[in-house]
Amino acid sequence: MRNEREGPGKGGFQTRPSTDNRQPTTDNRQQMNNTNNPSLSSWLPVPPGSDFPIQNIPFGIILTKDLSPRAASRIGDTVIDLYSLAALGYFHDFHIEPDVFLSSSLNNFISLGKPTWRAVRNRLSELFEARNSFLRDRVKDHSTILVDIQDVEMLLPVKVGDYTDFYSSIEHATNVGIMFRDPANALLPNWKHIPVGYHGRSSSIVVSGTPVHRPKGQTKADDAELPEFGPSKQVDFELEMAFIAGKSTSLGESVPVRDAEEYIFGLVLFNDLSARDIQKWEYVPLGPFLGKNFGSVASPWVVTLDALEPFRVQGPKQEPAVLPYLQTSGERNLNIQLDVLIRPEGGAEHLVSHSNFKFMYWNMAQQLAHQTVNGCNINVGDMYASGTISGPTPDSFGSMMEIAWKGTKPVGMPDGSERKFIHDNDTVIMRGYAEREGLRIGFGEVTTRILPAK
Amino acid sequence: MRNEREGPGKGGFQTRPSTDNRQPTTDNRQQMNNTNNPSLSSWLPVPPGSDFPIQNIPFGIILTKDLSPRAASRIGDTVIDLYSLAALGYFHDFHIEPDVFLSSSLNNFISLGKPTWRAVRNRLSELFEARNSFLRDRVKDHSTILVDIQDVEMLLPVKVGDYTDFYSSIEHATNVGIMFRDPANALLPNWKHIPVGYHGRSSSIVVSGTPVHRPKGQTKADDAELPEFGPSKQVDFELEMAFIAGKSTSLGESVPVRDAEEYIFGLVLFNDLSARDIQKWEYVPLGPFLGKNFGSVASPWVVTLDALEPFRVQGPKQEPAVLPYLQTSGERNLNIQLDVLIRPEGGAEHLVSHSNFKFMYWNMAQQLAHQTVNGCNINVGDMYASGTISGPTPDSFGSMMEIAWKGTKPVGMPDGSERKFIHDNDTVIMRGYAEREGLRIGFGEVTTRILPAK
Repeated sequence: MRNEREGPGKGGFQTRPSTDNRQPTTDNRQQMNNTNNPSLSSWLPVPPGSDFPIQNIPFGIILTKDLSPRAASRIGDTVIDLYSLAALGYFHDFHIEPDVFLSSSLNNFISLGKPTWRAVRNRLSELFEARNSFLRDRVKDHSTILVDIQDVEMLLPVKVGDYTDFYSSIEHATNVGIMFRDPANALLPNWKHIPVGYHGRSSSIVVSGTPVHRPKGQTKADDAELPEFGPSKQVDFELEMAFIAGKSTSLGESVPVRDAEEYIFGLVLFNDLSARDIQKWEYVPLGPFLGKNFGSVASPWVVTLDALEPFRVQGPKQEPAVLPYLQTSGERNLNIQLDVLIRPEGGAEHLVSHSNFKFMYWNMAQQLAHQTVNGCNINVGDMYASGTISGPTPDSFGSMMEIAWKGTKPVGMPDGSERKFIHDNDTVIMRGYAEREGLRIGFGEVTTRILPAK
Repeated sequence: MRNEREGPGKGGFQTRPSTDNRQPTTDNRQQMNNTNNPSLSSWLPVPPGSDFPIQNIPFGIILTKDLSPRAASRIGDTVIDLYSLAALGYFHDFHIEPDVFLSSSLNNFISLGKPTWRAVRNRLSELFEARNSFLRDRVKDHSTILVDIQDVEMLLPVKVGDYTDFYSSIEHATNVGIMFRDPANALLPNWKHIPVGYHGRSSSIVVSGTPVHRPKGQTKADDAELPEFGPSKQVDFELEMAFIAGKSTSLGESVPVRDAEEYIFGLVLFNDLSARDIQKWEYVPLGPFLGKNFGSVASPWVVTLDALEPFRVQGPKQEPAVLPYLQTSGERNLNIQLDVLIRPEGGAEHLVSHSNFKFMYWNMAQQLAHQTVNGCNINVGDMYASGTISGPTPDSFGSMMEIAWKGTKPVGMPDGSERKFIHDNDTVIMRGYAEREGLRIGFGEVTTRILPAK
């Protein structure tokens, strides 16, 4: 709590203008809320409809032509180089070594703890606020600190130690049950008691924009005697969000569900690419493997839980009641609108799904409490994906398997072609944003082009 | 291949005695074979029956009271500090920075590549050979380089990026099928076509000697309406071996089965602890999760494939024929004897299984070719575990579930107690060793004490 208490604006480096009529405060929660105030605006330009107003302040890793990888934030289309900001002394009162930002992942920064992330977020909110002339007038620092978004390449924001993929949308689990098992008993017996999940592959998580080759593998047609080998014919997306662990635990330790959100740094959009035909033949009895690990794609900017605070909503009622270690109360879901679009090579984007993160049956606190209830340890940078986010209506389903209902309802594209699954050279685009009372906090997008099999 | 070609004994630093009647050679395979010669002996003492003669030369990470973690090898009960050996110039002609050994994992050393591991192994074989007086007579260096095994703590040898657990013993898969599915169709349809595997949890892999608490979690009795929460009543071991990746690949790249062994650094013993009651309730449809990720335990010394070369044997005939991308020929299995013992608190060790790694239906080359056939990338330090290694007879089964046959055949212990699964404060001990023509290459042991639930 050290950094919080010292607070922005103390320590002799006055970043808040003396004309600021907001009272300096040592109460961190109040400071966090101030940064979300819809009436705040920035002296940096923010295009209308931008996902990145001054209330967002996401974190990511940038690479430029001239500079080594480093942590950054973003307001509008301007990237803020956090290493340079730190090196110039703008965080001097937080006792952060500037080198913590000079890294190809956010892990070291995240490891400093929530009071530090908040202090940095609050400082950025202050420094770039329209009424604050302090940095605005230090024009000589601008060329060091500010970079146009066009001039940076975004890297994967974290080094992922472990990755879990949950299965927490009741609509998705029900759809899968109806299509592949028994429509009368679509949900398996454990589904309403356990936030079901499995371990995924960390190595093949890549950042938005990374093209992924259509995987090859074994598949077996229902009427075939033997499996065959070749490119998957059923490459699919799964619309997901993933949270990133902000605090590590030791083996044997459990995170109580009431504290679990304190272990979450922020969220990204997540495309859990899936090869349905490979998955179908391999997944009994030990779960998905090669049908999932040829590429999973994350958006580059991590939006903090603090930035998403105004968008909390109640989740679905859990009936029957869950076991005590999973019980939560209050608004634990997030109202985040999600779009999925497909862009054929040389063609136009076509919306194939409009869903919402608020539909999730199991919330993030429950997922993390479950992940650790047996003593499994977590590490900063771990990713925990939601599972496919399907809503109640077909236009809100989160995978082509559901949208085209096992191929029985192909999607018509503007160019006259049809899609049951993803074609070679299609680009899948997912966008996510929360909106309320004129405030829009977004994630940007996660895009993935599927290249032909090698 | 640079290091190989330059070879030991070149570069002006004469480590091979001039009286050595073995010819210097630039052929790496031949050098590797020389290090396996059963007639070699060391000027370091090697107790009779030791797992670590001069032909072994395993790699691990040590911690001592006075020194920071570093890479080491071992002959008999003497630990060889590789950093100090490098810093004193004994590897000067390989162009290895000594700091590569000054690390809490072997990953940086392994990343230097197979020619370098071999060069180091060959050099150690030379330096410590009985007829070579070079280092033996440089007594002043001994206190820097050599440490008694009693004075070191062993750490996990690698930083594990990703961990896969295969399911490659036909006897184990058949036993599970008979007990839990249909005795007449014990093997699932995909089993003889796919080296079935799933992604496990990297964070909870720990080194031998680390105690593990009995996990808590959800279980549901067959006749109960609802699940309950509490300590697992069915904590089990799984006798496994794991290989460690020695070479990384890029996303989209596949390792051909014929080259796969070139991507393997070495092997460890592996205890894949399992909570059967938690696993049973959670694992359909996405596979094992909390039933497996509360602790998996590896032995500390990585034995290289080179050291195990004399113990190659033919694997079981694969019928029906596997798809071409999985076809191997020659001796691809390893004849490694494996013992599992249980030691109750204050009691004596009791042998509960004697198995052998040679029983595996799927070999390591096939596992790695399958893991990457869809373009999934691998990283140095990844662990690939075999799955439970059961042999054809009940005394060679690799888990308590099989040995006690679902609790119907409890194991009698010397103290009169019985075991269906592991009790609190039991220590599970696994040992592994290969023997042939007077040569014994062993792994030491992996021990795990199960502590009561927290």
